Amino acid sequence: MLIVGEKINAVRRSVVAAIERRDAEFFRKEAVRQVEAGADVVDINAGSDPQREADNMRWLVEVVQEAVRAPLCVDSPNPDVIKAGFGAYRGPARLWANSFTAQKARVEGVLPLVKDHGGPVVGLCMDEEGIPTTARARLKVAQRLAEQVDRYGIPRKSLYLDPLVEPVAVLPGRAAVVLDLIRMIKSSLEGVRTLICLSAVSHGLPNRKLLNRTFMVMLIEAGIDCVILDPLDRELRATITASRALLNQDEHCLDYIAAFRQDALGGKQRAGEEG
Amino acid sequence: MLIVGEKINAVRRSVVAAIERRDAEFFRKEAVRQVEAGADVVDINAGSDPQREADNMRWLVEVVQEAVRAPLCVDSPNPDVIKAGFGAYRGPARLWANSFTAQKARVEGVLPLVKDHGGPVVGLCMDEEGIPTTARARLKVAQRLAEQVDRYGIPRKSLYLDPLVEPVAVLPGRAAVVLDLIRMIKSSLEGVRTLICLSAVSHGLPNRKLLNRTFMVMLIEAGIDCVILDPLDRELRATITASRALLNQDEHCLDYIAAFRQDALGGKQRAGEEG
Repeated sequence: MLIVGEKINAVRRSVVAAIERRDAEFFRKEAVRQVEAGADVVDINAGSDPQREADNMRWLVEVVQEAVRAPLCVDSPNPDVIKAGFGAYRGPARLWANSFTAQKARVEGVLPLVKDHGGPVVGLCMDEEGIPTTARARLKVAQRLAEQVDRYGIPRKSLYLDPLVEPVAVLPGRAAVVLDLIRMIKSSLEGVRTLICLSAVSHGLPNRKLLNRTFMVMLIEAGIDCVILDPLDRELRATITASRALLNQDEHCLDYIAAFRQDALGGKQRAGEEG
Repeated sequence: MLIVGEKINAVRRSVVAAIERRDAEFFRKEAVRQVEAGADVVDINAGSDPQREADNMRWLVEVVQEAVRAPLCVDSPNPDVIKAGFGAYRGPARLWANSFTAQKARVEGVLPLVKDHGGPVVGLCMDEEGIPTTARARLKVAQRLAEQVDRYGIPRKSLYLDPLVEPVAVLPGRAAVVLDLIRMIKSSLEGVRTLICLSAVSHGLPNRKLLNRTFMVMLIEAGIDCVILDPLDRELRATITASRALLNQDEHCLDYIAAFRQDALGGKQRAGEEG
């Protein structure tokens, strides 16, 4: 499973302020800390101010690519902003385009860029009508996204379908829709992968980290391929390590035992200890 | 989901010692603490010494029934020990018989008692040949257990099928078999319920509580009906509360928010807080 570090995102006030004052050091540090903590990819979201998002994205990509060799994930609903981010990149890695939907403007704005550049692309399971409420209806949109990727000659393994997590506090029942949809995509849409933006699930509730890491377990069991999350959350990382050990994704539990030895699992109980 | 408190079990050295010295107060406290922490049922396991298990079970049932009104779960592989426990009970609740298998002696030793008493019974998905390795083979045993229950005129809703958790440290891949089997039972064996003894999954590994609560999330998502666990484990309880909130088993997340207000979720983050 791939981890995309979520922290360079203009939903955070500290990020907005650092963009405003063009604080390159802030972003270099944020990128390095996430990669050191296990992020495979670094998400870059420059906010949503239509006047400035493209400029900000361009600057962020310029700054962050100097700090890490990991791929960056250029994150915007606006294809022009994604284009600006791609234009600023001179590194060796393949950029991720995050995201397109089944809406015509986003297909036509993003997929040519992806075809040209050769990196992964995130497809949100929504269309002109918005986000379908059922797993079955979202699967139909997922199929349309896969068809578009085929049409542009982009390999299916480059497509990361995002089932779209919604806050359980507002839309109860939708977390289960996401899990169902991941399983449906796995069994019916050959070759494509799945990606989730984890923390949306807990929006509006207290102790969000507990909900996030609990949902993470369910996502891993459902077969998620990639998650956008906070790689600096130690308990979340321990939960991922434990999930992989339980699901036979960690041979002889070696990663689990290594994490324990590095004191990265929390808790104090030893092997074989009974109450 | 029902919770069976696991702590009165002679795998614990402190329990063995307290049985030896006939320390009634120890067991009354263990029972009360578990029920206060949320156990719906109190498991009673008197060890496996063939000379003394029946006597010890009889004494434990006598002692614990004075302390709590919750049902007791008489836990032994030996039908004679279960019979001894049932014989000692004078309370109003329905005792649980834990357990029988597809083996003839255990069917014939336990099911007449259950039919007579009218309580739930735990059926382990194993037979004369041992524990089948695949989910499909275990499902066949589960079907045989359900047929036996039918044959004795015991209602199917009284049958709690135990898919049998094995340690991932020794048998990797078997945790996934358990999850598959729970889903198969739910979809193909009408009316019966499922039960798990949680902590077996983590045997032999460090930080067992992390593995236990991580597996708990997967079990809840798979639809488990009843779990034998340590109700005094606060983080496990918080994880169960979070899982229910995510899966729309907690209307408007009211239990989750109440647990947060009672400081029962751990963590310090508040609603809406961002980094």
